[in-house]
Amino acid sequence: MKAKLQTPMIIVNFKTYLEATGCRAVELAKCAERASKESGVYIAVAPQFTDIKAVAEAVEIPVYAQHIDAIKPGSCTGHILPEAVKQAGAVGTLINHSERQIKLAEIDAVIKRCNEEGLISCVCTSNPPISAAVAYLNPDIISIEPPELIGTGIAVSKAQPEAVTNTMKLVRKVNDEAVVLCGAGISHGEDVATALRLGTYGVLVASGVVKAKDPYSVLREFTNSAK
Amino acid sequence: MKAKLQTPMIIVNFKTYLEATGCRAVELAKCAERASKESGVYIAVAPQFTDIKAVAEAVEIPVYAQHIDAIKPGSCTGHILPEAVKQAGAVGTLINHSERQIKLAEIDAVIKRCNEEGLISCVCTSNPPISAAVAYLNPDIISIEPPELIGTGIAVSKAQPEAVTNTMKLVRKVNDEAVVLCGAGISHGEDVATALRLGTYGVLVASGVVKAKDPYSVLREFTNSAK
Amino acid sequence: MKAKLQTPMIIVNFKTYLEATGCRAVELAKCAERASKESGVYIAVAPQFTDIKAVAEAVEIPVYAQHIDAIKPGSCTGHILPEAVKQAGAVGTLINHSERQIKLAEIDAVIKRCNEEGLISCVCTSNPPISAAVAYLNPDIISIEPPELIGTGIAVSKAQPEAVTNTMKLVRKVNDEAVVLCGAGISHGEDVATALRLGTYGVLVASGVVKAKDPYSVLREFTNSAK
Amino acid sequence: MKAKLQTPMIIVNFKTYLEATGCRAVELAKCAERASKESGVYIAVAPQFTDIKAVAEAVEIPVYAQHIDAIKPGSCTGHILPEAVKQAGAVGTLINHSERQIKLAEIDAVIKRCNEEGLISCVCTSNPPISAAVAYLNPDIISIEPPELIGTGIAVSKAQPEAVTNTMKLVRKVNDEAVVLCGAGISHGEDVATALRLGTYGVLVASGVVKAKDPYSVLREFTNSAK
Repeated sequence: MKAKLQTPMIIVNFKTYLEATGCRAVELAKCAERASKESGVYIAVAPQFTDIKAVAEAVEIPVYAQHIDAIKPGSCTGHILPEAVKQAGAVGTLINHSERQIKLAEIDAVIKRCNEEGLISCVCTSNPPISAAVAYLNPDIISIEPPELIGTGIAVSKAQPEAVTNTMKLVRKVNDEAVVLCGAGISHGEDVATALRLGTYGVLVASGVVKAKDPYSVLREFTNSAK
Repeated sequence: MKAKLQTPMIIVNFKTYLEATGCRAVELAKCAERASKESGVYIAVAPQFTDIKAVAEAVEIPVYAQHIDAIKPGSCTGHILPEAVKQAGAVGTLINHSERQIKLAEIDAVIKRCNEEGLISCVCTSNPPISAAVAYLNPDIISIEPPELIGTGIAVSKAQPEAVTNTMKLVRKVNDEAVVLCGAGISHGEDVATALRLGTYGVLVASGVVKAKDPYSVLREFTNSAK
Repeated sequence: MKAKLQTPMIIVNFKTYLEATGCRAVELAKCAERASKESGVYIAVAPQFTDIKAVAEAVEIPVYAQHIDAIKPGSCTGHILPEAVKQAGAVGTLINHSERQIKLAEIDAVIKRCNEEGLISCVCTSNPPISAAVAYLNPDIISIEPPELIGTGIAVSKAQPEAVTNTMKLVRKVNDEAVVLCGAGISHGEDVATALRLGTYGVLVASGVVKAKDPYSVLREFTNSAK
Repeated sequence: MKAKLQTPMIIVNFKTYLEATGCRAVELAKCAERASKESGVYIAVAPQFTDIKAVAEAVEIPVYAQHIDAIKPGSCTGHILPEAVKQAGAVGTLINHSERQIKLAEIDAVIKRCNEEGLISCVCTSNPPISAAVAYLNPDIISIEPPELIGTGIAVSKAQPEAVTNTMKLVRKVNDEAVVLCGAGISHGEDVATALRLGTYGVLVASGVVKAKDPYSVLREFTNSAK
């Protein structure tokens, strides 16, 4: 059975930042857990594959993988087996992140593998029509992230509000249930508040939290704006 | 500094077999450790990324990753950071396995990243000229595995002895130091003995050990033949 | 401006068959032209890149490329420039064929490039939800081809009629205009007739025509059933 | 049988420049032919796939493809069949250009396909060890092009003479016959003269010729320096 989703939600993508690798991944996840427990807001973390197990053992908040492959157990040296991330403690996975894009038929196949293994599927997209396209494949979460804003500190919710509202509108035509997030450039509480006001259920963040001097404070600012 | 290599050597690739995922990866690594300690033969294990840390904490034998990407820390969601596998406890990595092949310039870049991070580099190749080509890029280990024999139980050392001896000969023309292994179909002690007789320093095995009813016994058979 | 589409339609994919390479590509295109002129049915041909120009000069029926890249003119050695296939005489292109799949965001980008250059976009898909997903990206043609039937001689229209009707239904929810074709295993006039009865506008064929002893006769059988 | 190579040689890569697409590809090839005939220097051109046939019919100088795939005739929609570029009139092909890199085992396989079809194989490399690695796979031509200089107008022969001389030295250890070229930033006759003085047999050029106001004059400047 899939872990339950709660909204509003914040997913923190650790990418391959050194600030979020190894022991520092565990520390960062603990900050996220503290911010989540204090606020009651759903915060999930997406560390690197090698850190999933230690993070999942250290915290009670949900842990996502950053990618999985649409493979079955067997002879796939160097690939990411859905069963392996699940056994390590992940409850979900990012799919098709702009830094790890996959073919259309693979997105479909990975979502099906997620359903088989009870993993939450969070597909990343880059514009409204692509988001709507993905909605037809029935992932649990769709996160729109205009690639040109990733890592800029210019929040999608402020710079491209129409991309967010169009995504909501197009997705809802074909899919009543998918949780819609937005990401790219989210750095301030206000960015989160705007994202929710535009109709999304939360945000996918990375550098805004991971690279912050005090990630806990940033997350508290986010959760304060999310309530 | 790089961990020391010892020959003869056996590397066990766990691939994405369920029999070698999660707790079963740790169990299998313990079998390998027992066989290594009892025999004095160098045995390394290459579990999935998600299992590296738990395996490295559970055993004292060397742990390898199955792949790393030629990336620097930063924005590479879903990729394999050399620093991350190192911090998880890996001392080396497979590179360009036939199930996870990479571009030529990437092989060169990954070997350089290994050197920067003190990771042992083990490049997999499919025929003698390709092995010799790779020898010029100065990896620590070159493992020739004719893809048509992988998973067949027909040992490369018996079916294609000339591929192994040609590899040795061509590699030595340009590289005095690289450890040369052979793999594919290795299932019996005799396959290992033949591999060593042909001049290699050991074997890369997968299903022959992982899928065996009693992996420990198979490894002991290998180590007996390796001495 | 885009060339006009006409239904029912038959697109013949020449793949990389020797029977449809070089002069034999031109001959085959002439057979298709004859069948088209005699029957009044729209038949298009999709030869290899190297044959587009000679084929387009030899026949008056529409010529499609088998793939294009989502690139702008410049430094993309070895890639397929939309402007280049257009200047060679193509009026459209296959996109995301199961033998040449691309990333989701690339499908979106290639369709946009087609619109810029006035090329007809024909996106291949493998199942109904993926077809519906693609419908949101507004290609001119969507062709569903279950990969497991390609090259088998077992027609999709007979073996998986529900895949075809579901595709029609899902696509029409979001897109009123896209021409829907089906492909895989189409070898007999009856397969074409069934495809049309199921609501499609025609078929995408390959080996059923290219590998036939007498491609002209097969195409005439198809056009007879298409009227 | 393979077409004969002659040194010194100049290969002009047309990339996907609009200035070298369609009729303009033919015009540019004619300039190259004129410069070649007047000077007696071997000049080959590498136009896009769609232009190979028209170029090969218009000029007598050698025509290369920009890439081929290591495939056999059959079901490879959208890929580049060696037989197809040959039938279109190409006598050779670039392989592994920095803008179209392939896996190591594919380089080996493509070179073998070239030998089967009698096509000249020209493998592009990015540094001396990679060049030497490739030398073991016995291509006809090895062209070293440091990617950081491509398109800059800063000639490899002047900016990195040691990269060129090291390449020569390492390649010759294992391969007596391969023609070694250098490329990247070649824009003036002096760049060509320097390249030859360093021991290479010629140059691979692109923007320096294609983007020039008067490509013929640039080529004549090159051939004057090449004699």
